[in-house]
Amino acid sequence: MGEHRTLTVQLGERSYPIYIGEGLIDQAGQRFIEHGISSKSPIMIVTDEHVAVQQHLVRLESVLKQAGFTVSSAVVPAGETSKSLAVFEELVTKALQAGLDRKSTIVALGGGVVGDLAGFVAASYMRGIRFVQVPTTILAHDSSVGGKVAVNHPLAKNIIGAFHQPEMVLYDLSTLQTLPQRQVRAGLSEVVKHGLIWDAEFVAWCDENADRLQALDSDALGYALFKGCSVKAAVVSKDERENDLRAILNLGHTIGHALEAVAGYNQLLHGEAISIGMVGAARLAVKLGAPEQVYTVTKHVLSRVGLPVRLPEELDTDLIMDAMKHDKKFQEGSMTFIVPVAIGEVEINHTVSASLVREIVEELKQEA
Amino acid sequence: MGEHRTLTVQLGERSYPIYIGEGLIDQAGQRFIEHGISSKSPIMIVTDEHVAVQQHLVRLESVLKQAGFTVSSAVVPAGETSKSLAVFEELVTKALQAGLDRKSTIVALGGGVVGDLAGFVAASYMRGIRFVQVPTTILAHDSSVGGKVAVNHPLAKNIIGAFHQPEMVLYDLSTLQTLPQRQVRAGLSEVVKHGLIWDAEFVAWCDENADRLQALDSDALGYALFKGCSVKAAVVSKDERENDLRAILNLGHTIGHALEAVAGYNQLLHGEAISIGMVGAARLAVKLGAPEQVYTVTKHVLSRVGLPVRLPEELDTDLIMDAMKHDKKFQEGSMTFIVPVAIGEVEINHTVSASLVREIVEELKQEA
Repeated sequence: MGEHRTLTVQLGERSYPIYIGEGLIDQAGQRFIEHGISSKSPIMIVTDEHVAVQQHLVRLESVLKQAGFTVSSAVVPAGETSKSLAVFEELVTKALQAGLDRKSTIVALGGGVVGDLAGFVAASYMRGIRFVQVPTTILAHDSSVGGKVAVNHPLAKNIIGAFHQPEMVLYDLSTLQTLPQRQVRAGLSEVVKHGLIWDAEFVAWCDENADRLQALDSDALGYALFKGCSVKAAVVSKDERENDLRAILNLGHTIGHALEAVAGYNQLLHGEAISIGMVGAARLAVKLGAPEQVYTVTKHVLSRVGLPVRLPEELDTDLIMDAMKHDKKFQEGSMTFIVPVAIGEVEINHTVSASLVREIVEELKQEA
Repeated sequence: MGEHRTLTVQLGERSYPIYIGEGLIDQAGQRFIEHGISSKSPIMIVTDEHVAVQQHLVRLESVLKQAGFTVSSAVVPAGETSKSLAVFEELVTKALQAGLDRKSTIVALGGGVVGDLAGFVAASYMRGIRFVQVPTTILAHDSSVGGKVAVNHPLAKNIIGAFHQPEMVLYDLSTLQTLPQRQVRAGLSEVVKHGLIWDAEFVAWCDENADRLQALDSDALGYALFKGCSVKAAVVSKDERENDLRAILNLGHTIGHALEAVAGYNQLLHGEAISIGMVGAARLAVKLGAPEQVYTVTKHVLSRVGLPVRLPEELDTDLIMDAMKHDKKFQEGSMTFIVPVAIGEVEINHTVSASLVREIVEELKQEA
């Protein structure tokens, strides 16, 4: 079935494989059958307008039909605004009209937005039906592991959701070839993050292979996604319901989320904001006693894959601090930060003072 | 803490107790503390307009406040129409405004509608927070066991939902004293059903104690709810995710649901429709070889608790048959029925012919 890597996310009864390789969409029919997905019950593919105009949707539909499945597709607008209860309800309507039953499967073909949205439909339709992810972005490697699915509420992101593990993830590297360069780099941010929290060797590898990654070299990308998913899977397997350990996945996210909120979503892409946030966390680490190298290596490897490491000067420090105070991780004057104590190793620090964070934010604006 | 019965629903890590007795609302604060519900995170009570005007809400709010909890309440319109995504979204808004966090608890004070709705909010808010049920109807004894929570879609009832087990159920019998007589009888329908599928002795007990039950005698009611919950808990514990066994809980529901749909909801209460449906299932059983007594006892005990056993003649047989064909249990000309083979024992029959069912429907209109 062609060359590919397979990773199993270990979650007891709910364990599932992630297949990573070129052309996996063309094997979808066979994979579905191998995984016991019944062709007696209709399948619904959920995707967005950007993906739908490419060949991926047509390929996926036709290969599943050839394998004997009844397939319908629902196309939602591209972008975060589709993660709403209104679009969710439309998808349930379409699922009902297409006759989806308890043994049906919903397939998410797209990036994180489509995965989160379609996953929440799968989690709640008839109290939960099967779900398959076919990610088409690098960033989606992150959301394809962990089972978190959700939609937004006007007052809060991802506030309505569930934990719902997919049956499998089909990561077809050929879908990534059409990504815009800025999206590629932003996606690599979470890949590098997985190295920084867990695997120093992989961080060194990212540095050495940065050019190949940015050029979307299939072999390099396959390896990087495999490693990124592996780290996330290891963390999630130990802590499925997000207690302590899972928090380490938030490296760079406290500052990063605040930057996204202040800059406006889409101004600063998620991966870009997290990159700056990780540099901030590394600066913080050094102030708290970590070796200087934690900061220099973090900054270096992120620059190498083309990510910003400097906080745009025009973003107001007060607004950034305010945004952080709305973060769930902020409590009574002290903040919780994921702090790298070495490359590949982080700690959770619950007592970082707000004034120290303000200092870091100012310094990030001076970053060379 | 006063006299009460306790039943534990055995579901491994998610096991929970059902407390049944007079005045349990007044002990809610203490129970919450015993169950490790944190007073650091706000609690939200969800109830409906009918319950809110009674003293139960005030009692529950004040006892929880006295115990140190931060409490807010959300009141939804009474009736099935509140089980919508729109009301669900309003409740999420209120939860956000009240500052509910991951360690918060949502309390459902009311009947099945409030339990289903508030339960789905608890299941999906921040991907799942704690949930406590305080049922105020007899019928809710049924939905308080099993963890099924849901809202409706315009095209289908209960289609959007989850399995979310409560931390505990506080069944305060004093809340039942204000129920209208018709609601009382309709609620007893599911109580008797639990006897008919599982426990012949309890069916005999219902017959002997029918007058005390209809008079809302606290001791009789407490025992009946305890037995009803016990049967459901036994079935659910063996089959949490609704595979085969759980289907037996649908005794009377194939015909019953069709009657509700044709008569119009609220014309025929759920319990009334199920009562007629159970008589139909018993008639069917006898035709399939069960002893005549299955039919006579079923009909007798349902009549004794004041429930209808005859199908209203004005309901069109064709429409009833059509409604049944939309039922999930209908497949290609043959239907699935839960058939009592003896009092206290049922079987699942997947090959009941539609023509035999039509015969039964006609006969149910002639019922003496």
